Amino acid sequence: AIDSIIPLQSRSLWTKNKAKKIGSEEDFDEKFVNHVETTLARSLYNCDDMAAYEATSLSIRDNLVIDWNKTQQKFTARDPKRVYYLSLEFLMGRALDNALINMESPEGSTDKHANSRDMVSDSLQNLGFKLEDVLKQEPDAALGNGGLGRLAACFIDSLTTQNIPAWGYGLRYEYGIFAQKIIDGYQVETPDYWLNTGNRWEIERNEIQFPVTFYGYVDRQDGNRSTTEPSQWIGGERVIAMAYDFPVPGYKTTTVNNLRLWKAIPTTEFDFAKFNSGDYKNSVAEQQKAESITACLYPNDNFEAGKELRLKQQYFWCAASLHDILRRFKKTQRKWSEFPDQVAIQLNDTHPSLAILELQRVLVDLEGLKWDEAWDIVTKTFAYTNHTVMQEALEKWPVSLFGKLLPRHLEILYDVNWFFLQMVAKKYPNNAEILSSVSIIEEVNPERQVRMAFLAIVGSHKVNGVAELHSELIKTTIFKDFVDIFGASKFTNVTNGITPRRWLKQANPKLAQLIKDTLNDPDENYLLDMTKLTKLADYVDDKDFRNKWNDVKLQNKNTLADLMKKFNDGKDVVDREKLDDTLFDIQVKRIHEYKRQQMNIFGVIARYLDIKELLSEGKSIEEIEKVYPRKVSIFGGKSAPGYYMAKLIIKLINSVADVINNDESINGILKVFFIPDYNVSKAEIIIPASDISEHISTAGTEASGTSNMKFSMNGGLIIGTVDGANVEITREIGEDNIFLFGNLSEKVEDLRAAHRYKSDDFPESLDRVLSALESGIFSPDNSNEFKPLWDSIRYHGDYYLVSDDFESYLATQKLIDETYHYQREDWVKKSILSVANIGYFNSDRCIEDYAETIWNVEPVVPE
Amino acid sequence: AIDSIIPLQSRSLWTKNKAKKIGSEEDFDEKFVNHVETTLARSLYNCDDMAAYEATSLSIRDNLVIDWNKTQQKFTARDPKRVYYLSLEFLMGRALDNALINMESPEGSTDKHANSRDMVSDSLQNLGFKLEDVLKQEPDAALGNGGLGRLAACFIDSLTTQNIPAWGYGLRYEYGIFAQKIIDGYQVETPDYWLNTGNRWEIERNEIQFPVTFYGYVDRQDGNRSTTEPSQWIGGERVIAMAYDFPVPGYKTTTVNNLRLWKAIPTTEFDFAKFNSGDYKNSVAEQQKAESITACLYPNDNFEAGKELRLKQQYFWCAASLHDILRRFKKTQRKWSEFPDQVAIQLNDTHPSLAILELQRVLVDLEGLKWDEAWDIVTKTFAYTNHTVMQEALEKWPVSLFGKLLPRHLEILYDVNWFFLQMVAKKYPNNAEILSSVSIIEEVNPERQVRMAFLAIVGSHKVNGVAELHSELIKTTIFKDFVDIFGASKFTNVTNGITPRRWLKQANPKLAQLIKDTLNDPDENYLLDMTKLTKLADYVDDKDFRNKWNDVKLQNKNTLADLMKKFNDGKDVVDREKLDDTLFDIQVKRIHEYKRQQMNIFGVIARYLDIKELLSEGKSIEEIEKVYPRKVSIFGGKSAPGYYMAKLIIKLINSVADVINNDESINGILKVFFIPDYNVSKAEIIIPASDISEHISTAGTEASGTSNMKFSMNGGLIIGTVDGANVEITREIGEDNIFLFGNLSEKVEDLRAAHRYKSDDFPESLDRVLSALESGIFSPDNSNEFKPLWDSIRYHGDYYLVSDDFESYLATQKLIDETYHYQREDWVKKSILSVANIGYFNSDRCIEDYAETIWNVEPVVPE
Repeated sequence: AIDSIIPLQSRSLWTKNKAKKIGSEEDFDEKFVNHVETTLARSLYNCDDMAAYEATSLSIRDNLVIDWNKTQQKFTARDPKRVYYLSLEFLMGRALDNALINMESPEGSTDKHANSRDMVSDSLQNLGFKLEDVLKQEPDAALGNGGLGRLAACFIDSLTTQNIPAWGYGLRYEYGIFAQKIIDGYQVETPDYWLNTGNRWEIERNEIQFPVTFYGYVDRQDGNRSTTEPSQWIGGERVIAMAYDFPVPGYKTTTVNNLRLWKAIPTTEFDFAKFNSGDYKNSVAEQQKAESITACLYPNDNFEAGKELRLKQQYFWCAASLHDILRRFKKTQRKWSEFPDQVAIQLNDTHPSLAILELQRVLVDLEGLKWDEAWDIVTKTFAYTNHTVMQEALEKWPVSLFGKLLPRHLEILYDVNWFFLQMVAKKYPNNAEILSSVSIIEEVNPERQVRMAFLAIVGSHKVNGVAELHSELIKTTIFKDFVDIFGASKFTNVTNGITPRRWLKQANPKLAQLIKDTLNDPDENYLLDMTKLTKLADYVDDKDFRNKWNDVKLQNKNTLADLMKKFNDGKDVVDREKLDDTLFDIQVKRIHEYKRQQMNIFGVIARYLDIKELLSEGKSIEEIEKVYPRKVSIFGGKSAPGYYMAKLIIKLINSVADVINNDESINGILKVFFIPDYNVSKAEIIIPASDISEHISTAGTEASGTSNMKFSMNGGLIIGTVDGANVEITREIGEDNIFLFGNLSEKVEDLRAAHRYKSDDFPESLDRVLSALESGIFSPDNSNEFKPLWDSIRYHGDYYLVSDDFESYLATQKLIDETYHYQREDWVKKSILSVANIGYFNSDRCIEDYAETIWNVEPVVPE
Repeated sequence: AIDSIIPLQSRSLWTKNKAKKIGSEEDFDEKFVNHVETTLARSLYNCDDMAAYEATSLSIRDNLVIDWNKTQQKFTARDPKRVYYLSLEFLMGRALDNALINMESPEGSTDKHANSRDMVSDSLQNLGFKLEDVLKQEPDAALGNGGLGRLAACFIDSLTTQNIPAWGYGLRYEYGIFAQKIIDGYQVETPDYWLNTGNRWEIERNEIQFPVTFYGYVDRQDGNRSTTEPSQWIGGERVIAMAYDFPVPGYKTTTVNNLRLWKAIPTTEFDFAKFNSGDYKNSVAEQQKAESITACLYPNDNFEAGKELRLKQQYFWCAASLHDILRRFKKTQRKWSEFPDQVAIQLNDTHPSLAILELQRVLVDLEGLKWDEAWDIVTKTFAYTNHTVMQEALEKWPVSLFGKLLPRHLEILYDVNWFFLQMVAKKYPNNAEILSSVSIIEEVNPERQVRMAFLAIVGSHKVNGVAELHSELIKTTIFKDFVDIFGASKFTNVTNGITPRRWLKQANPKLAQLIKDTLNDPDENYLLDMTKLTKLADYVDDKDFRNKWNDVKLQNKNTLADLMKKFNDGKDVVDREKLDDTLFDIQVKRIHEYKRQQMNIFGVIARYLDIKELLSEGKSIEEIEKVYPRKVSIFGGKSAPGYYMAKLIIKLINSVADVINNDESINGILKVFFIPDYNVSKAEIIIPASDISEHISTAGTEASGTSNMKFSMNGGLIIGTVDGANVEITREIGEDNIFLFGNLSEKVEDLRAAHRYKSDDFPESLDRVLSALESGIFSPDNSNEFKPLWDSIRYHGDYYLVSDDFESYLATQKLIDETYHYQREDWVKKSILSVANIGYFNSDRCIEDYAETIWNVEPVVPE
């Protein structure tokens, strides 16, 4: 299937000169200096850490590209079934350290170093640099909001490690998720123009450009044709999707997959339709506008608002990605009916659902397939991952907006819906209610809406949730009717996971070293087979091991203390002398009412009020410390810029911190700190340092959560509700090793209903906290500043059930204090057992699940 | 002066691995394949001509960068005086072939090829490509309108060839000059998004970023301070200028100079002044806007219109360039008073005049120099090149716009003007007239204007015109009073020139080969010393040589015929059998009334009418051909998009072509063709193919012209007015070898005045042409279509004196016909003598002139 334009007699010259991988320190020295002196046009006279980072990245990138080429050529030759993972977000973080960890020496290399990372580190040392300083130069690739985007990043890592032929498709936003600044306690968003330091990891694919069309109208040569027959979409606006590729390395494999991100650029074709205007200035302005399509990542997490540009982004991305997938398929010259045998497309949430309509359009309008034939191919190709049951997070588009932007797709959507509803009607005759409840078009005032989740279900052969509880919930709530219609087998579960290469090896090198030594696994194969970690359980009674374990944690806490100091005007937040006696209680994730950071900070306030009361009763602070031992509550996370309540929670945390941290009477036994601009590289510092972390969403709201897994994998214990993946984590690590509390999801509806009718059984502990807020001790300038927060609980139905869970939350916190401070040996054992049993939540397992139950793909192992 | 951050003990490792230049075919093979397989992430399986172009460019660029580094390091160490050439336009055209021609083998290379270009050509051949096809892949870097921008490109080439330490500073426009399409005979402008195929020649300098400020207000801590004392400019808008470098190779030297172009990118600093808005969406939009500053080249040539964005471009560019220059100077730790000994800044036209105010501002406000001390440095540093005496081309800015955008600069401008006018008043007491006539601020209704040319004169130590006639004209017209005030010695002349490497060697390889063989100059040293060409005169009587000479021309005409065919729907425009009998009459340049393409096409019409009359009188076409022998009139050039008359001239040319080319009765003895989208790479095909070319501007309007030099250097004869450099060309090549006609510049004023009062002595020949136009034979659908053209001559004063010159123009055309067709040996001799004596107009000579009379800089010859 490979055909070349290079004449045969030239090939030996190519082979003779083929690019070589880095096999030794000397190879790296040479590559590095050459990149500095040619690509960067710099020299040893002006090579700073940033230039060293760039030259290192370019050198390692070259290495990756050699394997990338080999991988892609093999895929082309063997033509296996491929997975395409469509995600509007890929929260990749930094690439260099990850690439170094994954870097494989070429065959026959006799380099003396244990691994390539050490080799590069030595080489840099000899050239005048420290690897650690070099790594820190890299800006985060923050092309995601939170969990959904980071999941995509973990999956693409595991897909490659598992040698699955897979490409990710996303958008190359010029602006990633905003950078969060905290000014006077408030979140202030500043644009993250992350490319202004360049991006040495991307391959600019000038040669891969596809036109994408918007607006316009539909033409059918013959007025009598139906909308299910080939139609011509005459577009009104045209932009070019240009590809940027990011090679994705895997661990202990030379397979390199590809993450292809699209950038919108102006078309340079001559547009006859527009030339009449004769207005050069305007036509340049029109062209310039093209780039705005991929300018900005929408900074909302678990919330959807229907902006035209967002829909444009989605179609732009789906159209370009499908075009690319189809082009690749067509080169194999297989029959269309074989398409689903060769191509599996996974929809990460509903954002890429337009791909369903686009594939149907291409097959019917451009390739001339019959409607049914085409639809059969479509539904066999797609599978859909749901990430939420919350109404406000379900994507909907006004029909008029949809039809204006994508007139032909709306026709196809109507027909898809029509055939689907006919099928339903046959199954449930005379049941108008079910028809209206499952229709992809929602008939509501003032305007009808396209329900993207329903489109995704109807257009896919499998639908999965991301944790067992969540997958059950979607079947019994939002998608209940679809289970009846399609049968339960269409719905499945794949519990989320995380890549241990980044979240253990890269983030926590000290723990990784201890594990490697303890398991006597010098090649760190446990990172490929996390069941090996269970062996750690054998060492829980080994005092020496426990001390080492605790010592790793202590060192990581010290590193986090450095980070906090940096954001605290250079002053220590915690007492470094007492680090081992200070419980690090961490909640880092998007700020959301359903994630209940407000409950956490209320808990902090309650503790503070208790301490103050005891002080006022004349107790000494030493005595009080026995009851409320030393603790720091650490927060981090961004709020959507328009999410008022979430931003108010951030302000509250900072106001509380301001009061507590400056109250000398409490002698520092309680501290609060909000780390600004939480992102992947900060997570890599924060997570390994946690003693306890909070995963306390209202039961039934968090689909899975993945930070819970990251904390556990780093030996942090969890306080959590019976929600999302907490349930399965409990099952795996044992209920003795996790601190669960709160009401169960089954009770949520009843509790909410109860709030509507009575508000009397309000816990005194919470009342006290809210009264303190009302008194203005945390907002001296404006005692009503936090009114919306207490109002939502006292008067607006307490939708997130803070009042119902608060008492058990406080009780559990008390238990945690006791265990950490008075049963430390137990605590460390729990920590060890958490890590020992967390293996299930590695993303390699997810990929195996998807491959087997949804995609039906096989690995292609390199020779 | 060099200090490195790399520890001493690491340096030997750097030295050991230092990047090596390409010394052999094998080196190139390896570089090429490596770039394909790593940088481009492609392989022999998908390496097309475009990829081959990219890999070749990257390989050659690496080579250049090695010499670039060496050059810049030497400059840093030796610290010679440097020239900075500030030009808002650099019309570079293609880079690869130029780089190959200039490419020097490293010392000790034993490669068997005569030169590096042949070596690369052979290597590409063996790898499966043809150099010619590869070269054609490169898009033109069209960052200029016409002569001014191309002059800058020639100068930067000669500066390097002459080993002068020099940097060019300009803007990196995303959109170059528009691409011209001809639709139904009309010019249609389409945006030239030239970067969409990438640019392999630029070095993205992420590390070189300077903030540039606009708007805001001025603060002086002490209200009593004067505006000439240090003041603080509190800016309102801030963008970042990021550098892109283009290494500029020289001929037969390893000196590599730099062309630094600035791109505007958003600032990522946190802007406290703006955070209150709290509107994330808007702050992203604000940031995105930053890039619009360098989005677009203004497509006007010899015309100025005061748009705010244009002034923003100018300040952005001046501020960034000066910042860079000052940073470099400050590293040497010299005293400020030495600045003019180390730095010469040449202002290419008035566009960079703001640099004068910016330097004064930096010295006074930021560096704390006294006003007079600073101003002394400023005036010794700058020199200004004037390019026009035409009023509509003189740059002016409304004071209010200026003051809003640059409040502090307006203060400084007022003070500069005040001190200047005081000096004038002292010299000319009680002469209000001269004060108002030389004031930098023009007092006019409805709004006062800043006269940028006057600022440039007052702020510079030298002012030069670009041809002898032009330099005299500016002294006697627009700058007359300044000559009186500053003395004549401030005003000088440097006649323009062109680089023979591009315009002879690269554009006309066949002629270059013939010259090299004839002069017995295998190393082509004549390209460095054009006086060697005078030896060609020894061969004018050598029949065999003349035949070879004519044969080269014939081959070039054939190549141009290919180009015309391509734009003529694949049909030949000229009869290939009769190429040698067809006079190629060419006028390619911007379309402008002052350049009088209208007179040219009127001449074509007159010829056509004559032929038709003779036909109607019963003459056979064979007989007529004896009087009006075979000829093709070729036009090319862009009109400013808003220049109505120029666009109408294009339409007329195409309408005339439509009639004449389709008139079978004339048997093809006259053809007219408009080549769309004239640019540098088309010029390289068109110019070597010309027999006669037209440089027929109204006397006193064309400052120099450089295409006249290009045509002469390629053996084309010239028909021209006594204008611009035509005068000096005549002196050099001899008046027998050029066809001059028309009124002299001294008479222009009187003739124009005469038109105002009488319009009777109108030449019959022109009347006939205009009547034919009025009859509608060239605009059957709208007989008034070309009314504005005849009106401007008949009724609106004929500002460009077409009526005065038309008769002598026709007579001269007749002479040309006779000479070409009936005294061909003479014609070829004239052609040879043109080339033999054109040496003066090579841009190396210009640079020597500037270096000696204006900059006072010396070459730094590489060891």
